[in-house]
This record gives sequence, structure tokens and C-alpha cells, in this order.
Amino acid sequence: MKNSVGREIPDYIEGYGKVKPFEGAFANYGLREKAGVKIKSVKPGEDKVLNSIDEVLDKIELKDGMTVSFHHHLRNGDFVLNNVIYALAKRGIKDITVAASSIFPIHEPLVEHMKNGVVTQIIADYISGPVAEAISKGYSKKPSIMMTHGGRPRAIESGDLHIDVAFIGAPTADTYGNINGVYGKSACGSLGYAIADAQYADTVVAVTDNLVPYPACPIEISQEYVDYVVKMDSIGNPEGIVSGTTRITKDPVGLKIAKMASKVIEASGLVKEGMSFQTGAGGTSLAVAMELKDIMKKKEVTGSFAAGGITGYIVDMLQEGLFRNIFDVQCFDLKAVESYRDNPKHQTMSGSMYGNPHNRGSVVNNLDVMILGATEIDTDFNVNVTTGSDGMIMGGSGGHSDTAAGAKLAIVVTNLIKGRLPIIKDKVTTVTTPGESIDVVVTDRGIAVNPKREDLIEKLKKANLPVMTIEELKETAEKMTGKPEAIKTSDEIVAVVEYRDGTVIDVVRKVIS
Amino acid sequence: MKNSVGREIPDYIEGYGKVKPFEGAFANYGLREKAGVKIKSVKPGEDKVLNSIDEVLDKIELKDGMTVSFHHHLRNGDFVLNNVIYALAKRGIKDITVAASSIFPIHEPLVEHMKNGVVTQIIADYISGPVAEAISKGYSKKPSIMMTHGGRPRAIESGDLHIDVAFIGAPTADTYGNINGVYGKSACGSLGYAIADAQYADTVVAVTDNLVPYPACPIEISQEYVDYVVKMDSIGNPEGIVSGTTRITKDPVGLKIAKMASKVIEASGLVKEGMSFQTGAGGTSLAVAMELKDIMKKKEVTGSFAAGGITGYIVDMLQEGLFRNIFDVQCFDLKAVESYRDNPKHQTMSGSMYGNPHNRGSVVNNLDVMILGATEIDTDFNVNVTTGSDGMIMGGSGGHSDTAAGAKLAIVVTNLIKGRLPIIKDKVTTVTTPGESIDVVVTDRGIAVNPKREDLIEKLKKANLPVMTIEELKETAEKMTGKPEAIKTSDEIVAVVEYRDGTVIDVVRKVIS
Repeated sequence: MKNSVGREIPDYIEGYGKVKPFEGAFANYGLREKAGVKIKSVKPGEDKVLNSIDEVLDKIELKDGMTVSFHHHLRNGDFVLNNVIYALAKRGIKDITVAASSIFPIHEPLVEHMKNGVVTQIIADYISGPVAEAISKGYSKKPSIMMTHGGRPRAIESGDLHIDVAFIGAPTADTYGNINGVYGKSACGSLGYAIADAQYADTVVAVTDNLVPYPACPIEISQEYVDYVVKMDSIGNPEGIVSGTTRITKDPVGLKIAKMASKVIEASGLVKEGMSFQTGAGGTSLAVAMELKDIMKKKEVTGSFAAGGITGYIVDMLQEGLFRNIFDVQCFDLKAVESYRDNPKHQTMSGSMYGNPHNRGSVVNNLDVMILGATEIDTDFNVNVTTGSDGMIMGGSGGHSDTAAGAKLAIVVTNLIKGRLPIIKDKVTTVTTPGESIDVVVTDRGIAVNPKREDLIEKLKKANLPVMTIEELKETAEKMTGKPEAIKTSDEIVAVVEYRDGTVIDVVRKVIS
Repeated sequence: MKNSVGREIPDYIEGYGKVKPFEGAFANYGLREKAGVKIKSVKPGEDKVLNSIDEVLDKIELKDGMTVSFHHHLRNGDFVLNNVIYALAKRGIKDITVAASSIFPIHEPLVEHMKNGVVTQIIADYISGPVAEAISKGYSKKPSIMMTHGGRPRAIESGDLHIDVAFIGAPTADTYGNINGVYGKSACGSLGYAIADAQYADTVVAVTDNLVPYPACPIEISQEYVDYVVKMDSIGNPEGIVSGTTRITKDPVGLKIAKMASKVIEASGLVKEGMSFQTGAGGTSLAVAMELKDIMKKKEVTGSFAAGGITGYIVDMLQEGLFRNIFDVQCFDLKAVESYRDNPKHQTMSGSMYGNPHNRGSVVNNLDVMILGATEIDTDFNVNVTTGSDGMIMGGSGGHSDTAAGAKLAIVVTNLIKGRLPIIKDKVTTVTTPGESIDVVVTDRGIAVNPKREDLIEKLKKANLPVMTIEELKETAEKMTGKPEAIKTSDEIVAVVEYRDGTVIDVVRKVIS
């Protein structure tokens, strides 16, 4: 069958199950059910502290086929996932599903576990590095499931993704399981992506390198959700926790694109009192924030909120009074961590509150302007941030399709040509975000507006912005690069790309090299 | 059948159902299940703001027999409950169950609704005033269910108490349903008792008199749980919100008892680094806090936390560094509200986190010392705070049995004789808290220690405290007052007293006057 973005998807995928095809960004709302949860109730006098991951494994029911979960707030500094899987492997547990909110290069040891059948499925919102490569090459027995930052808590809350044991990396935990991310040597700030795991897993383990006396305040995850607390020497490498990607670009092309994007925002009429804004942490996206800042100052506009993964640049905007509040699902740098810790206007949000389409309204629903990146865009405005030009997995939605669906104005900023390859194609290799959610594509060579946004085309033309059709943009690029060769894939499905509502928007097939 | 505190309870109670008899404070732990929840998911662009309670009632499915819930953070100033029930009555809805965390004298209009069959059952943790009297007289078609502050969220989370619509009085709410209790003319502080309602009700309505632009920060209840926001001119009378009962007693007898209780605490050996403490908001209980403060200062002890409903007296102890943190489920006065708003060491806790026996560990589990009141105590140390000496309902557990179960040292402070009646009886009229949870009774005429606490008897005697048996205390009282006449009751059950785990610890029968 073909889904509504024209992708050919089987009805049933081995190792995944029955496929619900994607039918449109807003096709799948209405009455939903959150799953029940099993709780081992804790009596007064019972102790939760254990001395090693091994002691934890002694306490919990281990079985082949179990699902263990992790959050990615420690990013490329995370030691928790590798340690836990190593301990499980040592006990001979097989056929494990790793449900991590994201996977980074540091998780390379998973490749060996995949080869050995210890880990047979990866479920994540974003996968980069050796694990992504190994999945692309077909090393995982079952196809990976690529979710979104809002889709993951949806899946957990609905019971679609059942977690046997959640291992929650805790920069600070007390002896009864109250957790925060703002203190300790591995401080990472908001723990937004771990909330659903804590609320819905059968067993919840806090893994900390900063065990403090009861009670640890502030409390981001409450004792009422945590079964055990275990101390590790170090849960992460601080240099990896604070990602190096969160710098404004110095590339003049990127800066030009950012300036153009800011003019699009201004021309759209959305720069007004109470406006809301989110941007990714890529260099060009951050540069848009800087341009917007100037426009907001000039217009003397105070926004309602900035949201997302938060950087120091956004904190500056809060401190300068350009936004009343920040909604923070993860902190990208130390400045964000400190602001989140000390400024009550800088609030946390769980992954569900951020982007789950099936709660009573997520933050993305209230976004005015969203700045997004892209690896590929096609003439239907579909965006790929899942696979690279070689067909290999190199990322995933994260919050891409969540924010694009919610925002009034979703702008993709990108160089028209990257690594000698054109970004705009007839068909993207993988659809991460459907074209219906994308309003504008801003490149260094021109701007394309989704034809359904006639109002916007009008406004941008009035503002003398270089608007052209997406086909024209594509031709401009191809004139310089030629038409790239199509990627050859086999029939083997190595990853299923779930839209935020749990339908399948695309699959990734094994590349023939 | 007889339950484990010797109370004769039918197997089945009409209007309540099958009875699970109380079997002991810790008989009923182990694996528990939290219920699933139905959610009407909210798309971008949908508006949650409605202009009147009537508009809300137009939106939701109304039916005879429905259960509507309320929190009691506006205490005797609450306008929300009366307004909602009035609007439902006007539409001809019958057989309503009112599940409020507590009922106060201001809720007198319920009496008329009970007589008319509009409201046929009250479920609450505490009931005082005309509604309590009406229930006692048998005006409610179905028996009331008296829960505890920890038992109510347990019942809601487990599905034992299913809420059709939760109406949440919101001192501040934004247009998308984020709620806090710290700003607005009806500011009441922590909204701890409303959390389970927001998480588990089929429909959740925020009722506010301070509707602010999105987003309202800080967020105590998130938009992801709220279906509708409705504005009322006033949700409460500030004079009633801040209760007048939270003053230290000036009565010399009460002060004497408090001093004695503080000596008991000191002699117990629990006044040490990291100690934790809670006291009720009664005049004598608060006086104990003042005495303890001096002892802690003298011993240079810093406690870990004080918990409970919080008063300015406890805030002072935090500010003086006598406790590292406060866990706050409700704020009793303005000073508590301000501290809760401004001091990150002063943390919220939900009712479940506070006292639910069936989560993964509530705060009461970590209590060292708890100071409690009593209307009656019997020679088995069972405590009654549900009914008065006339057999009429005048209160209820609130957190009484939750904290008593959790605390290492649960002390009842009371005058030995009140209103010419002895407090210690052969059998209490109603068992609210089982004797096994009570360690010491401190009166103006002597101290009785639960015989199972031999260690404590030893310690108190060594400290030259006037320890006697509970029977001796009883005789002392009866010598002065004579033995009071037994209350005459009919067979009709007007209220079922649930222990925190959902078993039935007692029933209240209609008094024959």
C-alpha cells in the first residue's frame, strides 16, 4: 500500500508488526487511551539504594526479549546505556530492545551487541554514529523504530511501547529516588525526555554519580516513580554532555540564509506581542535567532515563550526580556543549565508536554515560528533528516515533525547545495516530516513557499523577497551539480520511520553498496 | 465480619459495594495497578477557553450518576464546588457523586442538593459543618465514603474512584490550561490534592478568576492534562482560603502538653542530624513545633525536611536553617504561600507523593516524628478524628492515618478531658487511625506509650517523664468526669471509613437522638 505521502509500505513488517499507514498530520486525533501501569508499592522502612548495576539486575526480573529504556540528556557523554547493556550481556540476556530517546556515537558498543544477538532492536528518536551505520547495514535482527520526540512519549503512554526497565541517568538523586538534572558533576539540566519512562515503566532505576541525602531538591522526577537508586562512579563525560554543535555559524552563506529567514518571519506578520519561537541547535538555525532578536528589539516586541532544546542564545533572549518564558525539554549548554536551575521563568517540559499529539495539547501546538534543518527536501516539501545522501541513517526526526506540525510558520533553512549535492530532489530518500507541515524553504539561492500558503507567497513577494517555486529552486541547484544518481536499495527494511501519531510515514531500506 | 481493629462490618454495603475489611496497616502492599486514562487529544488551533460554567456543561457529556471532583485548597473560602453543583442541578442532573478532597461549612448548599437527590454520595477525606451534620442524619441517599489524603489519590490512580469531570479551582490559569496556585487574588499555594484528579479524570476543567496569557509560570498542573479553562469572577473568598485555625495555642494546658510532647521527642533519640518532622495545624500541635525548634537549636541539629500542610511557623524553621527542605501539599497561610512561591527549598508534593501507600514510596514513609490530634483514643490506641462525642461526623482522617502509618514516632497530643468529657475510652466511637500506628499519647495528666514500643517506654522513664498505662490515663479521666454514656446508633450506615489502602476500617452509623 501507499501512505498519504506516496510511500510504498508493506502491511506487515517482520519484527515490527502490522503497519498503520500515515494518513496526514492531523488525521489521527480524537479519543485516545493512556495505558495502565504496574507498581510495586513500597512500604515504610524499605531501602531503595543498591551498590551496583549488578545488584540492580539481581533485584529485577531479567528475561530474553525485554525492553530497557534510556534518556539522552547526557548526549555523547552518556555512560549509562553502555554500562547497563554490558551488564545484561554478561548475564547472557538476549534479544533486548533498547528504547533510548536518542543514540549517539558514544554508544558504539551496541554494534557488537547487535552482532551477537544481545540487542535485536533499537527504538529511538535520533540515531547517529556507528550504531546508525550498523543499522543501515542490516546488523540489527529486527528493524529499528525511529520515533519523534513527541511520538515516543505518545507510544509509551499509550502502551504501544512497553518498557520493562527504565534506567534513568540522574545527575543528582537522593536515597529515595528523587531526581534532578541541575546539580552534580554530570549536570545536564531538564530531564524532559525521561518523564514518560519514569511514569510508565514496570521498573524504574535511577543511576547516579551524585547520591545525596534525602530529599534532593528541586525534584524533577519524584520518588513515587522510582524503584531503585544505584550509584556509579561517573554517569557521563561532561565534555560530551554539553554538545559542541550549539554554536552560531560563522559561514557567510549560513549567515545570509539566516538573515533571509528572519526577513521571512518579519514579512509573515508573526513578529508581534506574545509571539512564540523555537529553533534547532544547528549553526544556521541559531543565527536566525540572533537576527530575530534584532527585529524583536527594533519592534519592541515581547514574545510569550521560546521552546525546545535550549541554548545560551535563547537564555540571553529571556534575560533581555524578549520572551516572558522558556519551555525547556533539554539544555544544550551550561548557560541553559544554570538559567533553568535559577530562573523560575525558565520552565521544564516533559517530552509529552512538548510534542505528544495525543495528550490534551502540547507546547508545539502553540508555536508561531519554528526554524528547522534538512538533509533533503522534495518538491512536495517533504523533508528528510533521517538518512544521508548515501541512504545511510544519520539522524532522525527528534522534534522536527512535532514542531513542524504545530507551528504556524515552519521554516526550513539550508544551503541549496551541500557537499556538491543538491538538497532539493524529486523525492526525498526518506520522509521524516510531511510536506504539508512545511511552510517555507529558505536557501542561499532563493525562497520557496508551500503553494497551500498563498497568503504567505503574497506577503513575501510584497516584501521583495526572492520567492520562487520549489521546482525552480531544484533546477537552480541541478544546473550547478547535475542530477544525483538514485540510491540503490534492497527490499530489506532496516528501520521503520514512525510519524508522531504512531503511523508509518516511511521505511529505510538497506543500501546496496 | 470483624475487621482487624474489631469492628463489625457487613460484607456488602448498599450504595458502597463489597467491603474489603481492614487487615492491618501494612497488610495490603505488593504489586498494584494504576488505571488507564481516556484522553480527548487536542489539535493545534483548538481553543480551550470557555466563558461560563454553563458553556463547560454544554461541552461535556452530562449524565445522571456522574462523579465530579474538587480540591479543597480554597478551604472554607471555596466558591467553585457550590457554583458547579448549582449549574448541574439547574440542568436537572441527578444522582451526582461529589468527590472532593475535603468539605467545609461553606459547602452548606450541598445539604439541599442531597435532600433533592441531585447529590446522592459524598466522597471526601474530611467533612465538617452542615454537610457533615446532614450526612450524620442520613440525608444522603448513599453512604458517604471517608478517605484519607493518601488514600484518595490511591483510589483515583487505581480506578477505584473514577472521576467523570474534575473541576480544578485555579488561582491562576493561562488560556491553554497551565495552572498555578501562587499568583492571583485567590492564591492558595500548593495544589497537591488536585494532581491525581488532573491526571486521571475523563475531563478536566480549570476554573479560574485570574486568566493570564499563555504561558502561566510556574506550572503546577500542566496543559497536557486540562481540557477546558473557564473564567469565574471569583473562585473564592481570600479570608476563607487562609484558615484561621493555624495559630499556636495560648491555652496554658495546651502549652504544657506541647512542652511534654517535645520532651518525648527528645527522649526518643530522634532529634538528630537529618531528622524529619510533621505537625498538624492545630494550636497544640503547632506549639510542639515551637518547642522542638528550641531543642533543635540547642542541639545544633539540621533536619532533612518538614512536611504536610504548611504554616508560617514551619517556614520560619526552614528560613532559620533548622530544616533543609519543606514538602508542601497545602499552604495554610500567606507566609507559606510566599515561601512556596519564592524558595526552591520549599517543594510541592502531590497527594500521592505525600501519602499514597501504593506508589513506589510516599513522603510519609520517611517521617521520623508526627504530631497528631485526637477526638477520642481507646485503650488499644485507636484514634477517632472522624466523629464527635455525639456520634456526628465532624472531620475525618485527612492525613492522620497516612502520617501515623509512616512515622517512626507518631505522637497524639490532647487534653485528657475536653468539654467535660474524657478523651480516652474503652472503644472509640469511630476508628480513623488504627492503634498499631500510634506510639505515644501525651495529655496534660500523663503520657501513655503503646505497649509494643517497649524501647520507648524505657527511654521515657529514664527521662523521668510521667509514663503510665493507657488504662491508668483512662481511669484518671473517668474519676473526674464519670464514664460517659454510650452513643445510641441505628443500624443505618451513613458513612464508610476507608483506610488508606482502600479497606474498610470502620463505618459511621446514624445516631438515634
